[in-house]
Amino acid sequence: MSSAATAEASRVSSARPGERPKGEGRVRVVVENVVPHVDGGRFPAKRSVGEIVRVEADAFTDGHDKIGVAVRHRGEGGPWQEADMSPLVNDRWAGEFEVYAVGWHELSVVAWVDHFATWRNDLQKRVAAGQNVAVDLLIGAELVEEAAKGADGEVGRSLWGFAAFLRSELRAEAVEVALGGSLQALMRRYGPRKYTTELEAPVRVWVDRTRARFSSWYELFPRSASPEPGRHGTLRDVEERLASIAAMGFDVLYLPPVHPIGRAFRKGRNNSPVAAPGDAGSPWAIGGPEGGHDAVHPELGTVEDFARLVRAANDRGIEIAMDLAFQCSPDHPYVREHPEWFRHRPDGTIQYAENPPKKYQDIYPFDFECAQWEALWNELLRVTLFWHGQGVRIFRVDNPHTKPFPFWEWLIAEVKRRDPGVLFLAEAFTRPKVMYRLAKLGFTQSYTYFAWRNDPWSIRQYYTELTTPPAADFFRPNAWPNTPDILPEHLQHGGRAAFVARAVLAATLCANWGVYGPAFELMESRPAKAGSEEYQDSEKYQLRAWDIGRRDSLGDLLARLNEVRRGNVALQHDRGLRFHNVDNPSIVCYSKAQGENVILVAVNTDPHHTQWGTIDLDLAALGVRAGQAFQLHDLLTDARYRWEGNRAVVGLDPGTSPAHVFRVRPHDRTESDFEYFL
Amino acid sequence: MSSAATAEASRVSSARPGERPKGEGRVRVVVENVVPHVDGGRFPAKRSVGEIVRVEADAFTDGHDKIGVAVRHRGEGGPWQEADMSPLVNDRWAGEFEVYAVGWHELSVVAWVDHFATWRNDLQKRVAAGQNVAVDLLIGAELVEEAAKGADGEVGRSLWGFAAFLRSELRAEAVEVALGGSLQALMRRYGPRKYTTELEAPVRVWVDRTRARFSSWYELFPRSASPEPGRHGTLRDVEERLASIAAMGFDVLYLPPVHPIGRAFRKGRNNSPVAAPGDAGSPWAIGGPEGGHDAVHPELGTVEDFARLVRAANDRGIEIAMDLAFQCSPDHPYVREHPEWFRHRPDGTIQYAENPPKKYQDIYPFDFECAQWEALWNELLRVTLFWHGQGVRIFRVDNPHTKPFPFWEWLIAEVKRRDPGVLFLAEAFTRPKVMYRLAKLGFTQSYTYFAWRNDPWSIRQYYTELTTPPAADFFRPNAWPNTPDILPEHLQHGGRAAFVARAVLAATLCANWGVYGPAFELMESRPAKAGSEEYQDSEKYQLRAWDIGRRDSLGDLLARLNEVRRGNVALQHDRGLRFHNVDNPSIVCYSKAQGENVILVAVNTDPHHTQWGTIDLDLAALGVRAGQAFQLHDLLTDARYRWEGNRAVVGLDPGTSPAHVFRVRPHDRTESDFEYFL
Repeated sequence: MSSAATAEASRVSSARPGERPKGEGRVRVVVENVVPHVDGGRFPAKRSVGEIVRVEADAFTDGHDKIGVAVRHRGEGGPWQEADMSPLVNDRWAGEFEVYAVGWHELSVVAWVDHFATWRNDLQKRVAAGQNVAVDLLIGAELVEEAAKGADGEVGRSLWGFAAFLRSELRAEAVEVALGGSLQALMRRYGPRKYTTELEAPVRVWVDRTRARFSSWYELFPRSASPEPGRHGTLRDVEERLASIAAMGFDVLYLPPVHPIGRAFRKGRNNSPVAAPGDAGSPWAIGGPEGGHDAVHPELGTVEDFARLVRAANDRGIEIAMDLAFQCSPDHPYVREHPEWFRHRPDGTIQYAENPPKKYQDIYPFDFECAQWEALWNELLRVTLFWHGQGVRIFRVDNPHTKPFPFWEWLIAEVKRRDPGVLFLAEAFTRPKVMYRLAKLGFTQSYTYFAWRNDPWSIRQYYTELTTPPAADFFRPNAWPNTPDILPEHLQHGGRAAFVARAVLAATLCANWGVYGPAFELMESRPAKAGSEEYQDSEKYQLRAWDIGRRDSLGDLLARLNEVRRGNVALQHDRGLRFHNVDNPSIVCYSKAQGENVILVAVNTDPHHTQWGTIDLDLAALGVRAGQAFQLHDLLTDARYRWEGNRAVVGLDPGTSPAHVFRVRPHDRTESDFEYFL
Repeated sequence: MSSAATAEASRVSSARPGERPKGEGRVRVVVENVVPHVDGGRFPAKRSVGEIVRVEADAFTDGHDKIGVAVRHRGEGGPWQEADMSPLVNDRWAGEFEVYAVGWHELSVVAWVDHFATWRNDLQKRVAAGQNVAVDLLIGAELVEEAAKGADGEVGRSLWGFAAFLRSELRAEAVEVALGGSLQALMRRYGPRKYTTELEAPVRVWVDRTRARFSSWYELFPRSASPEPGRHGTLRDVEERLASIAAMGFDVLYLPPVHPIGRAFRKGRNNSPVAAPGDAGSPWAIGGPEGGHDAVHPELGTVEDFARLVRAANDRGIEIAMDLAFQCSPDHPYVREHPEWFRHRPDGTIQYAENPPKKYQDIYPFDFECAQWEALWNELLRVTLFWHGQGVRIFRVDNPHTKPFPFWEWLIAEVKRRDPGVLFLAEAFTRPKVMYRLAKLGFTQSYTYFAWRNDPWSIRQYYTELTTPPAADFFRPNAWPNTPDILPEHLQHGGRAAFVARAVLAATLCANWGVYGPAFELMESRPAKAGSEEYQDSEKYQLRAWDIGRRDSLGDLLARLNEVRRGNVALQHDRGLRFHNVDNPSIVCYSKAQGENVILVAVNTDPHHTQWGTIDLDLAALGVRAGQAFQLHDLLTDARYRWEGNRAVVGLDPGTSPAHVFRVRPHDRTESDFEYFL
């Protein structure tokens, strides 16, 4: 931008509402309703490296004058850059830019009255009406000269030249030049911007690394990782499992808490209130004589073993995600060393976790309202940074909605300040506004209601909400078909077909997904009792011997799904998600598109019956022009089909393939070998 | 509120997003998404005297604790008052208060963790589960004692007493007291509020006088007010018309500009570019040798005549609304005295109004970008205050969207600062966001798209948008079936039935309405030419001789409609508007309710054919219980009908009565004489 286009920037008023805006009364353009913008600027918007940030705003001025609008943006410490914004409809403007660096980014919207564009537009109408435009050309010359005064070198000379031409007697030629593209381009770039409107404060955008947006999680319990049945697994055993996890294509390995487990009130198998001798207890009942949150369960290994596991995983392209469960067993060292961090009952005992009338006597929650809350916060930050120091850059946080919001906002900010690449996953299965608040205040990703959304209508409604503003600007869903706490009914009764369908759904609907294995790929489907979502013989309370080499394991499917995800950038974003209407309420159909990469998915959510349906394809969402043929390449079976038009009949047999995952290619880009499908 | 309930208020952070909230980390409650709130606080919300301000907010905390939420509010300089807020659903809370005084009002939302309510709720569950609650009672005693410490006199003694009881051995009785209403009420009022969340800044609400919300406008051209055909009307003649206008029930009399009219380029009859000798010209081409914006057209009278008219009108309960048209004819004194306020073309002439290729050479717009913009603003304010000094407290502003927004925001604020009871009506028939911006920045009322909404579906869609948040919090619609610029097609071709239907619609849909008369009640329907919305022989360009005593005048209908409006408070608000489904797309049905006053309207929008339809009445909106009979009293015909159930068949014959305006009374409140309708 040359010096000609200096913006006489004028800030939107910070006066109290209803009072005269201070400063420059000639600032005529209004800018409103900027997106992205989270809670009026209270929270930053979220993006990740490699994403396009699309900015929209309402912009208009009084009268008929044309305006110019641009988005200004910069990385932290970087120079302001600018991208044009173009009008959509109804005074809404849009522009975009790409973000490349992790950390803070700022954006603002600037707008100004474009007198040259106004003049040019008016001139066109006058000429078309056959009016005498002699004086209008002189007005145009004045505008061009004003720009020329602020321009140097060749640009300045060009502008002076144009202005002179507009003043000449060669009326028809002057009109042609006046309306020509060269002068328009020059004036767009070098025309002065007077009395610019700008946002009172820039919009802050926090840009995460790519893995925040695109990650494939595998959860396993180290206690069961031993190849010898009955022997407590170790972190070394987990190292041995890395190869198979990498082969399945996962890039995040999430471990439940690896700390010592309390003995007082230890839970027994199947959540029995009393543990039998030798029962392992729950990894979330943290702390014992062996140590607390900065120690490793002696049966798992040592802190050094953990650090070694992290390095070994990294060597295979896998990150270890650690569980932050900020609560204590009654045996935790904190209970003895910092009784002030817990609530004390009048009978002298410490308040255990409760959801009356239920009691969880193996857990003492922290009392975040205690007088020494600052010391508590600092200690929990110290713990987090300790594990970060061991190489952990992803934290899955247990039940964050049971700890204060300001605590998380502070802790996450403190960690990201030291390492902007750290990611936090919120495990908060709770009310929607609470879940959204946690995302706003800093959680990178969030578990969702996915596990309980298995009918096409609610999948569509929910995922539309999650992938469009406002939620899409601060909430990143991570879809899990199962977790150690959640064995949904459809997996209990649906058999293999249900597991396949749910895996396809999670892996394609959501750029972040995860499974709790090997329970998932071995299709563990037994609930603790009828009507419960708890697993029978839950690994939370005992060791499990998993036959991971079982022939019918869904491991190959998981591998293929992750391979498809890695090979198709459309599945690495959530923003391009579109649903397509199907006339069968058991079938859900959606597509994702990024540039030329287009994926179309159809899933039969009924695990018991073949379902047929006609899809009304949104061809525009697929990048297909009307009348253009296209290829559907089924990435799960490798079958290819040629198709044309917007009506596609699908038949999905749960016994063979309850889902299609198609790559869509318009015909002039497909390979030569294809087969017809009717 | 006793001293016990001192709020240790803690402001929501003003830190930059993503940084640690400063101050008190124990503030656990989140308050979000407060309504009303206009553009994040950039503009005040609007209410009027006599309105209930309903405040909603999302509020929640971590974990399971109960919270308390209240709305605090105060008038300017007044003490803070508080009203409880109650939970709706999904973490949304609502409360309300009434506003009584014109001017600034503030509101805030406060929220805190209610430990006693939490404890009480938990106790209920434990007792129901048959658990031993000995320790829980002691915890409760501690909570009550904490409150007692901060309470004086009887309250303090009561609380100490309750606490002691909770500590006693009388377990069952203690439980009864613990769960009893007395203790609950005391603790709700005197329980301590620790670590309170409050909005970072209060929400400002501008409260107008009642007329802002409820007004009935009549527009006439003084030039045609003379009873002698051909003689130019005077302000004295207008005085003589006051009785008939008051008889029709109008309380605002709006006059087009009363200033001298320019001679240069004066428009002739029917917008002819050249005036014939004696042609009156357009009142909006303001200014001549006789003066400008602070003068009165000599043929109308003098400034003293104007002030007299204002007083005479006030004596009849009518306010004069003046037209502020900030533009000049070429003859305006400003052109000679302040050439710097206009844009000059290179040929030395002054830039006239244009919308290329159209030229309006009888109008010079101000150049609000001129260097002396501040002097221009000050002069226009001086003019406005001059007329305010003559008694004008309502201004209808001509085309405000062609002058800068910051100018209006400033001028309106300056006037309201001197007199908070001044009202401004924006005549901006333009794009929706521009219209909304003008309302936000201070216009009290706004013309709408009403004139072009004559089919039930679009009436419903548009008026739902206008009467619900966000628009309802800053935009007050004023519905005009016709204006001097707008003779809609349906009035050109629909005959009397169309005029009747449109009057009923405007007068009942909208608490503010207006008509351009006598063109309306005399059903003037001739357009300037086919397809135009301009009047033939428009009063804008000539005198008209109106036969206001004509027997078929709709004056009686207007009088009855205004009488119904005055007698039914539901029609004096827009917030209670609800639409009812009708199975005939030509019929629109809606109700308005305020307390026990309920009005139900059905209008046939087809002026040519009788239309029958079945209405699916929303009985709850009508204040009728299921199974309860109710009376429908037609306020236009005085017929009464007894009805039951939600299905009502209506037949509307445009020839006799294209509309019903019913007062709805549930049966146990009706008078004894009624007749059955089947």
